Amino acid sequence: MPFQKRYRYRFGDIDDAGIAYYPKFFHYFHCAFEDWWSDELGVDYAELMHERDLGFPAVKVESEFFAPIRYGDEPVVHVGVLRVGNSSVEFGFWMTLPGQEPEVRCRARITTVAVKMSEGTKMSVPEEWREAFGARVVELP
Amino acid sequence: MPFQKRYRYRFGDIDDAGIAYYPKFFHYFHCAFEDWWSDELGVDYAELMHERDLGFPAVKVESEFFAPIRYGDEPVVHVGVLRVGNSSVEFGFWMTLPGQEPEVRCRARITTVAVKMSEGTKMSVPEEWREAFGARVVELP
Amino acid sequence: MPFQKRYRYRFGDIDDAGIAYYPKFFHYFHCAFEDWWSDELGVDYAELMHERDLGFPAVKVESEFFAPIRYGDEPVVHVGVLRVGNSSVEFGFWMTLPGQEPEVRCRARITTVAVKMSEGTKMSVPEEWREAFGARVVELP
Amino acid sequence: MPFQKRYRYRFGDIDDAGIAYYPKFFHYFHCAFEDWWSDELGVDYAELMHERDLGFPAVKVESEFFAPIRYGDEPVVHVGVLRVGNSSVEFGFWMTLPGQEPEVRCRARITTVAVKMSEGTKMSVPEEWREAFGARVVELP
Repeated sequence: MPFQKRYRYRFGDIDDAGIAYYPKFFHYFHCAFEDWWSDELGVDYAELMHERDLGFPAVKVESEFFAPIRYGDEPVVHVGVLRVGNSSVEFGFWMTLPGQEPEVRCRARITTVAVKMSEGTKMSVPEEWREAFGARVVELP
Repeated sequence: MPFQKRYRYRFGDIDDAGIAYYPKFFHYFHCAFEDWWSDELGVDYAELMHERDLGFPAVKVESEFFAPIRYGDEPVVHVGVLRVGNSSVEFGFWMTLPGQEPEVRCRARITTVAVKMSEGTKMSVPEEWREAFGARVVELP
Repeated sequence: MPFQKRYRYRFGDIDDAGIAYYPKFFHYFHCAFEDWWSDELGVDYAELMHERDLGFPAVKVESEFFAPIRYGDEPVVHVGVLRVGNSSVEFGFWMTLPGQEPEVRCRARITTVAVKMSEGTKMSVPEEWREAFGARVVELP
Repeated sequence: MPFQKRYRYRFGDIDDAGIAYYPKFFHYFHCAFEDWWSDELGVDYAELMHERDLGFPAVKVESEFFAPIRYGDEPVVHVGVLRVGNSSVEFGFWMTLPGQEPEVRCRARITTVAVKMSEGTKMSVPEEWREAFGARVVELP
């Protein structure tokens, strides 16, 4: 089962068309990415960056939005790994509103690069995380 | 010359890695999209939506980030049209820091769909805008 | 016991000084206000506004910030009522980091006005909510 | 004449009531504070913090909102100094929509403290800035 967590869209997440501002999709994907680290992998993303000197900034985003999210919606964000390269890791995210049509509201393939934070240079994915990622491979819906 | 406008990254646009939070790329692309309507096409995006009943919500995003933006940077955002379909319009955006390496910091192909706002249904791109878009075709750098 | 709920500060809530951007205090106070409606009073704030035609926009803010919040902090936000007038309601909010010094990080007195949303005019606080508010009076710490 | 600058409210600044989310008032006040440093005092706020080791975090906010701001509005934000203490500085901000009723949409007294950024400790306001602030005293409307 891929990691999943429910988020509540907020009063201020809305745009002038009355639906969620689309950059907020990426904000909630990032929230889920952070919670995936702390709740699933057992390391706070802050600790990973500042104490273990490792971060995964996004370098590429491919995303599709199938239907809007509205204020008060509580979508489930799903997180998993699509592919692990030498220094790149592709993460998959999707957002569902269970029981509503269409259930899948958006999905994204977000390519990141392992970066040594103190030097700002890319590095090979550490073996510890390569294994953790390999155990959490998913397919986008 | 494609439309371009300079924006100033703000104190609160920063993430815990000390660089601009990546969803802010999409926020500034959207700001430039709005200003492209008012400053280049002569119609405020608010007027387009609320009085002319037409909007262009994003349905697909393909984007690459080549180098970070930092607090105080004043990137130039470039906007143009990549392709016009029947009801879809693909817009191209890129962000440059003139005189800095790398000059192009990020770029995006954002596919939108013409929507009749009052009904939330997709529609053909009106002829008036098809012409305006056709006169503003660009290629991503 | 006043209503309280824990929130997790996010990667993108940070400013260029490395701490939470101060307008985010008000964002999380508003999140707690929304959750107070749904979790404590049993009505989603969206339903209150759109179906019951009642909202409580802020007209005055008095707030003090005693110590910063950082990325990864999970403060508890406390919500209660300070005073109910004819059409005005003063809400109290404060944020604590239990077990840390100083425990109270910020507090606010936020004056709102009961508004009939469809007309945008102020109205008397409905009796139903006057009672609910009267049962949830707190003092700021 | 106090410093003033026009800002454009954005598509994503809106809340579910269709007006600007109130924490955005503080965001635009902060934008104007940053621009006041660079455009009026001649030092980028980033340089002030990171090279001159001086910052002015907010410790107290007193603010009133008289009327909403909507998407597409281009309010003028006014910035000046209300009072200079030993280490505290009170700044005044207000937002106007020239030619509209009511012209003044909101105002705020924001108390900051001069902080030596590298140590996170408060300090006396440096003489250079005490003079600059003293020459820019305003009264809130």
